[in-house]
Amino acid sequence: MKTQVAIIGSGPAGLMLGHLLRRAGIDCVILERQSRAHVEGRIRAGVLERTTTDILDRLGINSRMHAEGLPHDGFCLADGERLIHIDIAELTGKQVMVYGQTEMTRDLIAAAAERELEILWSVENVELHGVDSEKPHITFTKGGECERLDARFIVGCDGFHGPSRRAIPKGVGREFERVYPFGWLGILADVPPCHDELIYANHARGFALASMRSNTRSRYYIQVPLDQSVEDWPDERLWDELALRLGPEVAARITRGPALEKSIAPLRSYVFEPMRHGSLFLAGDAAHIVPPTGAKGLNLAASDISYLSDGLIDFFNRGDERGIDQYSERALARVWKSERFSWSLTRLMHRFPDDTPFDRRMQVAELDYIASSRAARRAIAENYVGLPL
Amino acid sequence: MKTQVAIIGSGPAGLMLGHLLRRAGIDCVILERQSRAHVEGRIRAGVLERTTTDILDRLGINSRMHAEGLPHDGFCLADGERLIHIDIAELTGKQVMVYGQTEMTRDLIAAAAERELEILWSVENVELHGVDSEKPHITFTKGGECERLDARFIVGCDGFHGPSRRAIPKGVGREFERVYPFGWLGILADVPPCHDELIYANHARGFALASMRSNTRSRYYIQVPLDQSVEDWPDERLWDELALRLGPEVAARITRGPALEKSIAPLRSYVFEPMRHGSLFLAGDAAHIVPPTGAKGLNLAASDISYLSDGLIDFFNRGDERGIDQYSERALARVWKSERFSWSLTRLMHRFPDDTPFDRRMQVAELDYIASSRAARRAIAENYVGLPL
Repeated sequence: MKTQVAIIGSGPAGLMLGHLLRRAGIDCVILERQSRAHVEGRIRAGVLERTTTDILDRLGINSRMHAEGLPHDGFCLADGERLIHIDIAELTGKQVMVYGQTEMTRDLIAAAAERELEILWSVENVELHGVDSEKPHITFTKGGECERLDARFIVGCDGFHGPSRRAIPKGVGREFERVYPFGWLGILADVPPCHDELIYANHARGFALASMRSNTRSRYYIQVPLDQSVEDWPDERLWDELALRLGPEVAARITRGPALEKSIAPLRSYVFEPMRHGSLFLAGDAAHIVPPTGAKGLNLAASDISYLSDGLIDFFNRGDERGIDQYSERALARVWKSERFSWSLTRLMHRFPDDTPFDRRMQVAELDYIASSRAARRAIAENYVGLPL
Repeated sequence: MKTQVAIIGSGPAGLMLGHLLRRAGIDCVILERQSRAHVEGRIRAGVLERTTTDILDRLGINSRMHAEGLPHDGFCLADGERLIHIDIAELTGKQVMVYGQTEMTRDLIAAAAERELEILWSVENVELHGVDSEKPHITFTKGGECERLDARFIVGCDGFHGPSRRAIPKGVGREFERVYPFGWLGILADVPPCHDELIYANHARGFALASMRSNTRSRYYIQVPLDQSVEDWPDERLWDELALRLGPEVAARITRGPALEKSIAPLRSYVFEPMRHGSLFLAGDAAHIVPPTGAKGLNLAASDISYLSDGLIDFFNRGDERGIDQYSERALARVWKSERFSWSLTRLMHRFPDDTPFDRRMQVAELDYIASSRAARRAIAENYVGLPL
């Protein structure tokens, strides 16, 4: 097989890129390790920046998002009994869109066939070759058969654990990492949300987040030590804990229900530089991870794809290499700003095991300052809705 | 001896409070451990917020400050070759005043006699008694004689190491502290400043600050490890190091000169709560210390005095206790916000021995963000000029 751009991974990054390239008449193929059913069933992020919704609008794969998605004008930071409202619409003139990554992925997959975007599901043993050359190729097996896909470029949209980043020779790139001493235990349930906006809560017992995927599907999280497992948290214990951490006023509005999904995710900040090596580009989680506080992960994948698709289209359709040459630098400038925001919001809203009483007072003082300063709220809001591309 | 308010310490806090009380017809006496010559010779801070200049204006002890002081419209954050200008006048409509604490102290002392503000110099063995009661008193020696000063209230303006805070029984208050793993080596020289605004520089070799006290007197600092001493830094070595850390463009404008003063100060964040115990009030460094980054120390003393003088005047002249009852809470709300600002600016601009490459990138990302966001610059500027009382 031969194509212009071989994309590894059919998460949001790979799917958005595939559609954008196809729309510009560029050949591409997506290779996905999992089955379509698995990908469509994965529970992931749910808050889309304008950067992300702009891509879906540009693709015209947006009708269900606009029909079912919930535009949000703000969110809340809670500390103990206090609720600080960040009115992002008033502060920035923009909104965010609550629409599950799961739903967005389904929409992008559903539109693939009619737009001649080829996705090969359940491919195994993906290996990248010749990324230093202008003729890279990928080998893989599918249904037991060995296959080879030749391309001008390979784009790794295969997440933190995928093979793409590992295909870059040791010593070429540089890794930056911070691992946090806790995880997020999440529960998804078909119950109405307790509040019409997200609530990020810093509580003496640890962080909690009241989120949602729709008006009938809620998503909650709590900070848990890394040595705990889902088995430690039967549904009722988790609902009780959420009620405590979100405070009596919010708790009174929580509707409990059986978990559709429950899992613990570690928190990590990670960046790999550069995001291009020869004929290989990295995008999304393949190149960088943010802790989920502030919902930047999916949206950073979208901004990577925005830069990269423009660059690839200029290359193939106009012979202009500037966009792909600048890709890594442009993408990383935005990545680092989002890394900073996610790290600082994580720092502000969680209880760290090693924190001193002084550290805790710094959290309280920052929340006091945010509550009292429009400039501080505006800075948070502009990061939350997404910094300009 | 008997007075209404006994003030311990003739730094800016004690002197401002003494003058404000005398102006309202309230009796007070200041006890100072050092000689007048020593106090007038001490080299201290140099950037005054509006909060502070407002007090001097209100007192009418402001003519030399307005004649010789330098109103500043902004300052710079540098990182490597980059200079980020924070235009505080444009962002907040306010300025700060560069006028040495030394000069301000001299002005306040010079005005004491004619305003019948009594200052007892060179008192020794100061001890506080009966601060739990409504009849506290202070014992001390002066010229070998034992003396006693009775008062309705005692105000401790005697700095971090003074006796006032230690007079509060153990277990009554709570201390919060962070000690930083470096100090500031400062040099004062009668040379023109290298730049018309302050430059805070984050350099691979450590922090540097180009500051000034007037158009002919410069003040520079560099971050040094705590195990170094002034003897390690002959003038020429220090000027060479400043030139490196401030970068070639700034270095070309540095005028070198012999040190009038050279010293190393440790960096500390410290808060004691509450700031009142019975008949004793704490103000300024006696209750809290900030690292010098951002120049908040003297200005916090001024805001403490602003709250406390109002409260004491209401108490003595109108029999209204609300101001003194609310003093600790009101002062601490502002103290913690300044602690946060000083801590975060220290964090942003210094190299910490334990910092990982990720931590360093967070500094760069924050500086990138500040450079690109008016909201971020405004947040810094409003803290720098002083948050509202």
